[in-house]
Amino acid sequence: MDSTYVVGIDVGGQTSKIGVVDARGTVLAQTVIRTDTHEQVELYIAELAEAVNKLIKESGTEGLVRGIGVGAPNGNYYTGTIENAPNLVWGRTRVEFAKLLTEAMGGIPVALTNDANAAAVGEMTYGAARGMKNFIMITLGTGVGSGIVINGEVVYGHDGFAGELGHTAAVHNNGRTCGCGKTGCLETYASATGVARTAREWLELTDEPSLLRGLDNIASKDVYEAAKDGDKLALKIFEFTGKILGRSFADFIAFSAPEAIVLFGGLARAKEFLTGPIEEAMNANVLPMWRNKVKLVYSQLKESDAAILGASALAWEL
Amino acid sequence: MDSTYVVGIDVGGQTSKIGVVDARGTVLAQTVIRTDTHEQVELYIAELAEAVNKLIKESGTEGLVRGIGVGAPNGNYYTGTIENAPNLVWGRTRVEFAKLLTEAMGGIPVALTNDANAAAVGEMTYGAARGMKNFIMITLGTGVGSGIVINGEVVYGHDGFAGELGHTAAVHNNGRTCGCGKTGCLETYASATGVARTAREWLELTDEPSLLRGLDNIASKDVYEAAKDGDKLALKIFEFTGKILGRSFADFIAFSAPEAIVLFGGLARAKEFLTGPIEEAMNANVLPMWRNKVKLVYSQLKESDAAILGASALAWEL
Repeated sequence: MDSTYVVGIDVGGQTSKIGVVDARGTVLAQTVIRTDTHEQVELYIAELAEAVNKLIKESGTEGLVRGIGVGAPNGNYYTGTIENAPNLVWGRTRVEFAKLLTEAMGGIPVALTNDANAAAVGEMTYGAARGMKNFIMITLGTGVGSGIVINGEVVYGHDGFAGELGHTAAVHNNGRTCGCGKTGCLETYASATGVARTAREWLELTDEPSLLRGLDNIASKDVYEAAKDGDKLALKIFEFTGKILGRSFADFIAFSAPEAIVLFGGLARAKEFLTGPIEEAMNANVLPMWRNKVKLVYSQLKESDAAILGASALAWEL
Repeated sequence: MDSTYVVGIDVGGQTSKIGVVDARGTVLAQTVIRTDTHEQVELYIAELAEAVNKLIKESGTEGLVRGIGVGAPNGNYYTGTIENAPNLVWGRTRVEFAKLLTEAMGGIPVALTNDANAAAVGEMTYGAARGMKNFIMITLGTGVGSGIVINGEVVYGHDGFAGELGHTAAVHNNGRTCGCGKTGCLETYASATGVARTAREWLELTDEPSLLRGLDNIASKDVYEAAKDGDKLALKIFEFTGKILGRSFADFIAFSAPEAIVLFGGLARAKEFLTGPIEEAMNANVLPMWRNKVKLVYSQLKESDAAILGASALAWEL
């Protein structure tokens, strides 16, 4: 890789983060635009292209950008489209995202995938999974996302949408209702919202004293703070969350026998409380040959840069 | 593929089936030797090589065999070894199978994997998965095995042992004890032995009249025969089995988004009773985007040839 650069774009419901990145994973320059100003995708793309061009100029990389990588909800790597993305005001039907952006950028190639897959590529290119050919990336944010890497390649599957491990069954009977319409999905328990949900449920079910009692709109961050203060209920919530995660990870291991499971996202910050319970449940539920063999590691990317880096890493493969 | 041939060997606990196969998947000649005569692997390999050489001579393919493919319990594709295979008298520790057989065969290359992976390659090369790049093979025999194909390649994982879907959790709480030491594994419910187990359990739990009552040592075949005769309990057993399978398949789909799930093995013969319940549970438990999209298909290989064909197909990739 000579002195060429890539652009990474992380498309979220409210904002889109843009960065110019070099081959070592240094973000030379970054900026943010709103995602939700226009319902017409063409208007959004025009603003996005303008911001990207401005950033390229500012970073002195004009003519040196060889590709643009985009991580976006429901982004399809094969077709370059975004489909049925409820959180994107212009993405609720079917949008030819990669094609439109390439056109607006004067022909620079664009690769698109969902945010968790982008995170996996980022981790493999610059982060905790460097040198690994087989790993599973789990993003613990508002939801639970996943990016699966086998033989050094992200698994996209027959239709481009593989790797929805947040919607595998963590609980078979009387499971929590999920936004996807099913019940018992891993993400209803093991996401930031899942942790908050556990807290609210348990506070109602018991009289156990807890720092969380009386708080309005409990968030996972509150549970984390309480756990750090030694709150027993909060600690139990993380134990439960870790157990659910570890049990699910055991099944994921049976699928692709990864070298490691890599955790990323807001909730992964609670690693001091999650690691023990996850590893215990994971090792209790895998086949003996994998016991204590599969590593549990945490993202090594700076959180503010991670989304941009992940998306940008895609572009190196163009 | 000009006029070259491959040899397929299916190693079972009692017998080893050997066949010489052409590029179209025709088994030109086949034979069987015992697997369990010798505890010393060198003696078994010597007998095996002798039988293979004799078969090659008989089929008139001397000097035209370009490789040997072997399907064996716990066969590791990467290392060519068989490790900790409880059902192989000479395979309970660690055996350099591929190396030993290549040496005994005067240098003909040998590829080795487990039986379910071999079945997947066979189905992709000659059977129901021809032309498919992404599918999951599930073998419903004494146990539940699996071979996962992504982008046209079998998934071996970091250590060569990927694809143990029979040991994912079908039931989380109070699940049945599995031979592997865990509880609730898919194979304790959805294998031939699982079906027999369900029958024995349910006969004890209820007074429901059934043709199965009073039978000694109920096998899955008995349940199948009873279902064909319209026995209500037997039909309910297949419904339950199909539901468990379909629910698990939904989670497998979330992993690799396959084009199809391919079923093979003795229990798959009960497809008239399994297909409906499997499809119903599968579609009820996948994300909406996969509903009614993933095909459920059955092996198209002649059962007597399938194991040999699957193993032989591996050799074309050498």
